Amino acid sequence: MDGVAYVNGEFAPLSEARVSILDRGFLFADGVYEVAAVLEGRLVDNRAHLERLKRSLAALTISAPLSAAELEKVQEELIVRNRLEEGIVYIQVTRGAGPRDFSFPRDAAPTLVMFTQRKNILNAPNVATGIAVKTLPDIRWAWRHIKSVALLPQVLAKQAAVAEGRQEAWMYDEAGLVTEGASSTAFIVTKEGRVTTRPNSSAILPGCTRQIILGLAKGAGLAIEERSFSVEEALGAAEAFVSSASTFVLPVVSIDGRTVGAGVPGETAKRLRKLYVDFALAEVRRAR
Amino acid sequence: MDGVAYVNGEFAPLSEARVSILDRGFLFADGVYEVAAVLEGRLVDNRAHLERLKRSLAALTISAPLSAAELEKVQEELIVRNRLEEGIVYIQVTRGAGPRDFSFPRDAAPTLVMFTQRKNILNAPNVATGIAVKTLPDIRWAWRHIKSVALLPQVLAKQAAVAEGRQEAWMYDEAGLVTEGASSTAFIVTKEGRVTTRPNSSAILPGCTRQIILGLAKGAGLAIEERSFSVEEALGAAEAFVSSASTFVLPVVSIDGRTVGAGVPGETAKRLRKLYVDFALAEVRRAR
Repeated sequence: MDGVAYVNGEFAPLSEARVSILDRGFLFADGVYEVAAVLEGRLVDNRAHLERLKRSLAALTISAPLSAAELEKVQEELIVRNRLEEGIVYIQVTRGAGPRDFSFPRDAAPTLVMFTQRKNILNAPNVATGIAVKTLPDIRWAWRHIKSVALLPQVLAKQAAVAEGRQEAWMYDEAGLVTEGASSTAFIVTKEGRVTTRPNSSAILPGCTRQIILGLAKGAGLAIEERSFSVEEALGAAEAFVSSASTFVLPVVSIDGRTVGAGVPGETAKRLRKLYVDFALAEVRRAR
Repeated sequence: MDGVAYVNGEFAPLSEARVSILDRGFLFADGVYEVAAVLEGRLVDNRAHLERLKRSLAALTISAPLSAAELEKVQEELIVRNRLEEGIVYIQVTRGAGPRDFSFPRDAAPTLVMFTQRKNILNAPNVATGIAVKTLPDIRWAWRHIKSVALLPQVLAKQAAVAEGRQEAWMYDEAGLVTEGASSTAFIVTKEGRVTTRPNSSAILPGCTRQIILGLAKGAGLAIEERSFSVEEALGAAEAFVSSASTFVLPVVSIDGRTVGAGVPGETAKRLRKLYVDFALAEVRRAR
């Protein structure tokens, strides 16, 4: 827990950064967040993250504590202060602190918290091996398009996977169709080579990385298909993979202990990962 | 925000009481809570609340930071330090602070936060007038029997009610059956005089006050029926009311702007409120 964090206009050592126990983020999960990747000391696809943050805040009628340009300045300041080359910048905005009452406080100022984490994204060990996935029912609330901090179901799903030595949990709806990963978007590549992922709706978070990947796949001449798929279909698919802001693309090599495709990272997943890495590196180098 | 709070073994002014921004209660809603009423400076039905807290912690495999007896000592100390005659004691336990990661940290110590709020329970203005209820779809997660701090859907429901000048929100499931209030248990009294409330299941929080009321109703010779009811049935019922630890019993006089029963607090609701107040006062006076 080294490093420097930002809390409501002040920089402080992360280990000493605090919020009120009356903060509605702590008492009610009444807040939203974003995670943006950093490569070579620069933010990746940050505009999309800040735009989604704005949408999440609007959905909960929390006023934005800073403009997108001001948020980015703080993100960049944190990258410098933490000498962050590769990792993530985390942003959380809550409705603020006030006497505990379910309804919104009249005059609370939103709380803004930001910090960084070092992370090996480009050479993560999971890239070469692929990851194992556990599936379980999606027990979350109905408004999953809002990136809220009410993450307890995702925490329990991830932990259930980790407890079995898997790296991610895929959740499925009442029809048995995969919604998404606990902290990633779920994809399969069909035997016909179609890159397939669930369409955006209130059933899933609209992934920023997901969106870029679909564009990159299209640009590379791959067939893409936005439709739901079942766990059973994923098990019979040619490949599976996940995407997220902090992992880019990770191949999935097994689901519930059964191998997917050849049981090794698939060619399409590897290709899309390379395309995303190229996209990200081009962006951060252009920013210099 | 006057008063004295308790955070992990220390007492501090509530306005200065803080937790780490890396606390999993703040980042992930990875925690649980309880609210116990105080009358005449004594806790009401506290054993039931501490038992439910223990069950909530076990459901999330968070270790209990203190024993029930130790928790009660802190509750009592807070009542004394805050000179609290009437109101509530709030307890929140989270999985603790650690580097941000969805899966459980290896060695985090749970965070324990407690504070009090003054509240006029016995002579609340709503008692004489009754409250108005707004109904809306229940969009919460599936494990509502766990009293977690992932309360964002309840916050939004309550705010939607308050924005229309109502005091509580009743949520209904996909079959149109009422689950519960945003922060209370929903009851109706049928035309035949049956005190009716949804049976405990993962669809609702098992209310401590609900449980006592059912016992008191039975003891008073009233017919009780644990079954689901629709919004439509509630609108045609003789009476409706809600129960919670911090309000005891409040009559419901309208739902979505349509009067329930005679549009004034019903006799059964008033009787059950009196029985609960008598129960609570007897308990706190016995404790002296």
